[in-house]
Amino acid sequence: MSDQRTYGAIEIGGTKIICAVGTEDGTIQERTRFPTSSPETDVPRMTDFFSGSGISSLGVGTFGPVDLRGKGDEYGKILECPREKWSGCPLGGLLRNALKVPVAVDSDVNAACIGEASFGAGKGKENVLYITVGTGIGIGFTIDGRPLHGLMHPEGGHSKVMMHPDETISSVCRFHPDCAEGFASGPAVERRCGRRGESIPKDDPVWEIEAYYLSQLVRNCMQILSPNVIVMGGGVMEQSHLFPMVRDGVREQLHGHYVRAESADLDTYIVPSLLGGSQALLGCIRMASEVFGHPLSHL
Amino acid sequence: MSDQRTYGAIEIGGTKIICAVGTEDGTIQERTRFPTSSPETDVPRMTDFFSGSGISSLGVGTFGPVDLRGKGDEYGKILECPREKWSGCPLGGLLRNALKVPVAVDSDVNAACIGEASFGAGKGKENVLYITVGTGIGIGFTIDGRPLHGLMHPEGGHSKVMMHPDETISSVCRFHPDCAEGFASGPAVERRCGRRGESIPKDDPVWEIEAYYLSQLVRNCMQILSPNVIVMGGGVMEQSHLFPMVRDGVREQLHGHYVRAESADLDTYIVPSLLGGSQALLGCIRMASEVFGHPLSHL
Repeated sequence: MSDQRTYGAIEIGGTKIICAVGTEDGTIQERTRFPTSSPETDVPRMTDFFSGSGISSLGVGTFGPVDLRGKGDEYGKILECPREKWSGCPLGGLLRNALKVPVAVDSDVNAACIGEASFGAGKGKENVLYITVGTGIGIGFTIDGRPLHGLMHPEGGHSKVMMHPDETISSVCRFHPDCAEGFASGPAVERRCGRRGESIPKDDPVWEIEAYYLSQLVRNCMQILSPNVIVMGGGVMEQSHLFPMVRDGVREQLHGHYVRAESADLDTYIVPSLLGGSQALLGCIRMASEVFGHPLSHL
Repeated sequence: MSDQRTYGAIEIGGTKIICAVGTEDGTIQERTRFPTSSPETDVPRMTDFFSGSGISSLGVGTFGPVDLRGKGDEYGKILECPREKWSGCPLGGLLRNALKVPVAVDSDVNAACIGEASFGAGKGKENVLYITVGTGIGIGFTIDGRPLHGLMHPEGGHSKVMMHPDETISSVCRFHPDCAEGFASGPAVERRCGRRGESIPKDDPVWEIEAYYLSQLVRNCMQILSPNVIVMGGGVMEQSHLFPMVRDGVREQLHGHYVRAESADLDTYIVPSLLGGSQALLGCIRMASEVFGHPLSHL
């Protein structure tokens, strides 16, 4: 139907920004992408894309940390972060004021989790954990489709891991000498091997080290969050031979402790993303459809 | 008012069971306790206590693991656990069928978290993490007052900790050689020192080891769950000198990463229970008041 409502979606990553228009069923009708630069140049490009598109509302998934509790123009403000140009950018307010539609903002990983829970590998599951392993490591968590917030949004990629006995590098995280992101993100793999993960053979022992860290993260998230399914995505997880290795590491660590029917078969409990890189964008569409109807002053 | 509605509460621990009758405002009117034995002797004692009490509904917090997703008589069933007599006990169904009132069941730690969130140190906070450090270590988590379930309920006491370099004992956990419960529960303190924590001087170096483990657990829960406040209770935490030590350990591990206003002051972010051991019982009263009005067939 030509009069079907359309929603806007913006995924803001460290290197690229994707804007899209789609419908409630998760169909993307139009999309564009451009490299991430600064709010001064990028926010106008975003609003230009949606100008005249007739979107009813907008969902935004951005690198964090982002303030989801501020009211008015403070809602969806990027907090102090390594990307200095973006630190303090009142992203949510800028977009809402320019486009005059309700705007929902979340972390890129929560958006991806909403996407998987709504349309992907978490569909039909009560509580969904999404772990992205790429330039950084992030976690998103949804409870009956609603993202976990609280103090901010989960930052579980920075939770502690124990160093592998054969480790040769120091943490790549600028904050933590001992976090999952520091030892298992794409840049950590590259520091360890001097080359990017996709060029490393599947049988290289470095993948055992990678799986050692990821399985610690998965085990801790599993025990602390009690999710119904764990979806893993991001560039590093495109090395699909990591999945059985991570599952083995988790199984070994659990020692059979309180395994339920759903988690007994780790092949169906720890699964790859089904949305081929569009999970955050589709999550933003869902966020937009949920914020639609709220008055502009709601947030 | 004599016609004020009353609710039942049962806290089932490894060594004792407490039954109480109270009102919605958290007033306990009557309580009894007896040692934990077996379902065959204990369930009748519970139902006898409430017989004729006129309670409108019942909340139960029990040692886990407990199935919160089963329907009918399967709801609130104790799963396979070290307490063999209780493994498989259909607790929720037995109590509901005997008392003919709606029954809500949760883990003892989720019940305690509900208590703190409703009446204690988490009151007024959006998302509350409760960590108990006693015979075992458990975590409970509430989101706007509702407990986190998912696959089951959090079992974060079994998440991974890195061993202290001066550690002299092996894990006391029968499952995990490397979990928080294994190294920081009361029995772990006792194995390490040959005596119970309350008899160990405050300046004994063993408390540094204890805080080392607890601060790892708190840091991981903080990053994974993003709570608005962290309440700690249980027998071991009655050693109140542990609080500043745990806060110091957490502060050191965070390295200033994404600290928000609420978490910048760890003195008000990581706090002792305010309910003096009644947190689970009060949580059960709240659970009962929330399940009241649901038909018996609801669960």
